[in-house]
Amino acid sequence: MTPPPDLLHSVHHDGSARYVSNPYPRLSEVVTLRVRAAPAAPIRAILMRTVPDGEQHFTRLTLAAQETACHWYSVQLEVTMPLVNYRFVLVTPQGMWSYNGTGLHAFQPTDYDDFRLIADYSAPHWATQSVFYQIFPDRFADGDPGTNPRTGAPAYADHVVEAREWHEPPGHIHPSYEFYGGDLPGITQRLPYLQALGINALYLNPIFTAPSVHKYDVADFEQVDPHFGGNQALAELRQALSARDMRLMLDIVPNHCGANHPWFQAALANPHSDQSDHFIFTAHPEYVSWLGVHTLPKLNYNSQALREYMYAGPNSIFRRWLRPPYSIDGWRVDVANMLGNYRADRLNAEVTHGIRTAVKAENPAAYLLSENFFDASGQLQGNQYDANMNYRGFTVPLWEWLNQQRLRHPSITEELIPSTRLSTEGLTQAWQAFRAPIPWVIALQQFALIDSHDTARIRSMVGGNDRLHRLAAVLQFTYPGIPCVLYGDEIGLEGRDATSTRCTMPWDEAAWNHDLLAFYQQIIALRRTSAALAIGGFQLLYTDDDTLAFQRDTNEEVIVVVGYRGQAERPAGRLPVAHAAIADGTYFTELLSGAAAVVEAGTLPLPAMQQGPALWRAQR
Amino acid sequence: MTPPPDLLHSVHHDGSARYVSNPYPRLSEVVTLRVRAAPAAPIRAILMRTVPDGEQHFTRLTLAAQETACHWYSVQLEVTMPLVNYRFVLVTPQGMWSYNGTGLHAFQPTDYDDFRLIADYSAPHWATQSVFYQIFPDRFADGDPGTNPRTGAPAYADHVVEAREWHEPPGHIHPSYEFYGGDLPGITQRLPYLQALGINALYLNPIFTAPSVHKYDVADFEQVDPHFGGNQALAELRQALSARDMRLMLDIVPNHCGANHPWFQAALANPHSDQSDHFIFTAHPEYVSWLGVHTLPKLNYNSQALREYMYAGPNSIFRRWLRPPYSIDGWRVDVANMLGNYRADRLNAEVTHGIRTAVKAENPAAYLLSENFFDASGQLQGNQYDANMNYRGFTVPLWEWLNQQRLRHPSITEELIPSTRLSTEGLTQAWQAFRAPIPWVIALQQFALIDSHDTARIRSMVGGNDRLHRLAAVLQFTYPGIPCVLYGDEIGLEGRDATSTRCTMPWDEAAWNHDLLAFYQQIIALRRTSAALAIGGFQLLYTDDDTLAFQRDTNEEVIVVVGYRGQAERPAGRLPVAHAAIADGTYFTELLSGAAAVVEAGTLPLPAMQQGPALWRAQR
Repeated sequence: MTPPPDLLHSVHHDGSARYVSNPYPRLSEVVTLRVRAAPAAPIRAILMRTVPDGEQHFTRLTLAAQETACHWYSVQLEVTMPLVNYRFVLVTPQGMWSYNGTGLHAFQPTDYDDFRLIADYSAPHWATQSVFYQIFPDRFADGDPGTNPRTGAPAYADHVVEAREWHEPPGHIHPSYEFYGGDLPGITQRLPYLQALGINALYLNPIFTAPSVHKYDVADFEQVDPHFGGNQALAELRQALSARDMRLMLDIVPNHCGANHPWFQAALANPHSDQSDHFIFTAHPEYVSWLGVHTLPKLNYNSQALREYMYAGPNSIFRRWLRPPYSIDGWRVDVANMLGNYRADRLNAEVTHGIRTAVKAENPAAYLLSENFFDASGQLQGNQYDANMNYRGFTVPLWEWLNQQRLRHPSITEELIPSTRLSTEGLTQAWQAFRAPIPWVIALQQFALIDSHDTARIRSMVGGNDRLHRLAAVLQFTYPGIPCVLYGDEIGLEGRDATSTRCTMPWDEAAWNHDLLAFYQQIIALRRTSAALAIGGFQLLYTDDDTLAFQRDTNEEVIVVVGYRGQAERPAGRLPVAHAAIADGTYFTELLSGAAAVVEAGTLPLPAMQQGPALWRAQR
Repeated sequence: MTPPPDLLHSVHHDGSARYVSNPYPRLSEVVTLRVRAAPAAPIRAILMRTVPDGEQHFTRLTLAAQETACHWYSVQLEVTMPLVNYRFVLVTPQGMWSYNGTGLHAFQPTDYDDFRLIADYSAPHWATQSVFYQIFPDRFADGDPGTNPRTGAPAYADHVVEAREWHEPPGHIHPSYEFYGGDLPGITQRLPYLQALGINALYLNPIFTAPSVHKYDVADFEQVDPHFGGNQALAELRQALSARDMRLMLDIVPNHCGANHPWFQAALANPHSDQSDHFIFTAHPEYVSWLGVHTLPKLNYNSQALREYMYAGPNSIFRRWLRPPYSIDGWRVDVANMLGNYRADRLNAEVTHGIRTAVKAENPAAYLLSENFFDASGQLQGNQYDANMNYRGFTVPLWEWLNQQRLRHPSITEELIPSTRLSTEGLTQAWQAFRAPIPWVIALQQFALIDSHDTARIRSMVGGNDRLHRLAAVLQFTYPGIPCVLYGDEIGLEGRDATSTRCTMPWDEAAWNHDLLAFYQQIIALRRTSAALAIGGFQLLYTDDDTLAFQRDTNEEVIVVVGYRGQAERPAGRLPVAHAAIADGTYFTELLSGAAAVVEAGTLPLPAMQQGPALWRAQR
């Protein structure tokens, strides 16, 4: 196949303000789109291709500006639909190329990877300016020992509470029923630590009353668990956060509840109870539960009463916690991928849209985040979630690139698993494939994580390798999205699985990795002060076997991120940057080492580097 | 990037019965999926990856059979959802590959290109056994000169009828108001010709009463135009077709009507009339029309009354023509891409689903075909259309491969257009990109055309080159889909644009290209007798600069299609077929030349060939 002329790779557009005059247009607004290309790129014409009301339409771009480093083409686009998709056609002497979110195509592709603009979008603008910190409340800090669960107290069914000492590792008898006493007052007390770290938003795992320690088995959506301090403790945490200009996101479980929720107990006792239609009884008392876990009966959104209670009613669960004195700033929605769907029932889109409507009616700037380990693209088109926990589009490929390709299935035994890592091109293609089909403003809000309470910790994932841990963290903080640090990652905690990951946070500072903590403080500070990282464009610059490099940029600032996973020292070399319109003479500083370099002949001279990240920053 | 091991390209699955035990499952049915691979392919394990109710699930395939030419792996899949997507993960010593509708991927892709199965699908099974013939009724045959429009009769507004002689070319004064007198009795009279050609289904351009010759400006959805013979002539055509076991599809225009439709006249005269809500008045009397053409006011499906009349009511337009004495077998829905959509109004999916529900309630085997020149994937998931006129997924790439890349836009002047053709790899990638995101059973039903009343004729498109015309026709008849011959293509009619394409059918056989006609008879007969072409699998075998080769196959039959666009003779050579599990010793016959060849060492020895097609057929 004829490859596109090399200089066509200098053609660039993304959804950032450098290329879209207003990334947050109203319906009927006219925006200006811009495309840049190397001055020598063999371009005869560029056309914008749109599909207003389903019919293809072309508009030719005009050459708007000629700079030394690039030419700018521009065109006006009226945002006539709630979701506008567009791409460009490059007319060259060597043929026509379609240019969309997955790059250059010799043929006219489907619309799936078109660039996308959404109209009248209620954006959580604060979120892109945030660095989150995830806390599993029982394990972070014990602020009020008086509320701690006591060994032997009844938990659920035959299970009883096992109270554990703070220094003991988890996983003793039953991970769901061992308690360490962490609570909301403990979090409130530790806010100075978090603020010093640079954190300005919290994501708390579930806190509503439930028998287990993880509290995904909710017994009461209206009450914070008394072991965590009850509703009053949440109000106090909110007040303390507001005083520090920090945000708060809670975890909610609309897909199922705990088996001892009064609704389910009533429905189980009496097939004709008012709550029976809240569940899916295949043949009473047989019922559908989350992945077959009988303690978590699945909620049935064919029930209008359930919809009213959970989101649609004026005092619904989704709405009430957004109000004072709790005034939470967002919801992380558990198993958003499964919600409302069961076999022939496909209520997911309808229920999710209803949740969004309720949440945004209460607070248009609320951040509505889905948990979906898989392909969430369909839920990220502006009318459902503001973002997803971006495991599949960011985290999992990164793990496979740093460590090893993996596939968890009982039939795939150790000897079958290849010892291969994902190739660097595979990593960047995976990222691109998941970035392409969602609007840019959503991509900027994707929850960027390198681990969570549900996974091994990053430090264990890379075998304790400090350089690879830092490389992962830098990519987490520089890839488009909103970084979230799992409590304790910053001091080097390890965890090989979900149980050991949920260890307690040690408050004896002698146990901390202080170098790592300082590193985290540095990259958090960078993320919070760099517009390029928060809302700048993204362009992949380079890959080789063990290296990737990309640019984040605004009109004022350029950050070039280089990631190197190789074990041997990477020799000094020149990184091509001309196709990113970085002009000769641009002066870069490497933020982690203090090194400096000046662009010449379209390349950035990179010194030799060890395994790990480099962060080159320049002013335009 | 590490390319996949060469032998992995022998891994194959598609939606045909060779690989899916029942391509038309009911909900809750368990089907067996099969994957084949070369015996030497470095496979440690294959897993099926599904996403039931949004949650990823793996199931390992078992090695079910070992043949000389391939190994077969199989797995059972319960069809738990109306639309089930699945792909495979290949575990090899060199890494893991995801295998979906766009082939092998080193990373885990989005779900978009997953294989797809639909449950409880009302299939028009007859359609895959059909070869359609498209007729523009005014231009095919004049069976009753008594009903012909007369010059000077009022047509629309200031326009009057211009009656033309059969031998005159169209495009004299106004192409919409020149009439040649063709009618339904003319078609009825010419059925022997069509049956001799091998045709067994008709697609008629609009026939309902309308002032223009094309009749997309409908004035009465309930009456066949009197110039075409009225309703009685349609009933007679239906009877004659049934006697020959031929099918009938009509063209319907639900997106707009003609400006002299009584509804619009009433709405225009009185903003408070009952019909006003059938249209979109931006500021009465200003109204929205199809692409701004004021004779075609767009219908407004916010009107429940309109919905009832057009499709939802028990005696709706969509339903009534499916009943005796007309009993049409399908609808071709005009501008299905635009229907119901206007700026913030996005009613397309809802209205289309309503149309489908009505049509299938009347006749579950009706063929519901959309006209969408662009990406129709979203409408082809089992709950809207049975198929689309596959311009973008088949025809346009083919034109660009045979002739020249093109892009029609006033700003793209002749000197800007590159003289390049689409590369062969670009052609096959375009086909694949549009085939991948739709269920296989829908792909089999896609309307395969190489021209229509809306385009230049294929013969003109290829500059009168008979070899390229035949190549186009063979690809039309062998690519997955249902071929439709535009009236007169089979005798060599030319047409450089939509106006000249709509020339009259000459019935003086001296004007015919009889060689071409015989060729069409041959490939039509082949298509109608070959299960491999109607419902067989599809595998791309080979491409080079000017050649493509693919396989269509069932358990009993293999057809290998070779297309060569080069001008110089293509030297004899060996076509690799081992990766298609075609065993050594398989005896092939070339159907156009009678040549024979036997597979050896995993290759099919191809003799030298001229520009054009080759059709190799074997029994297994």
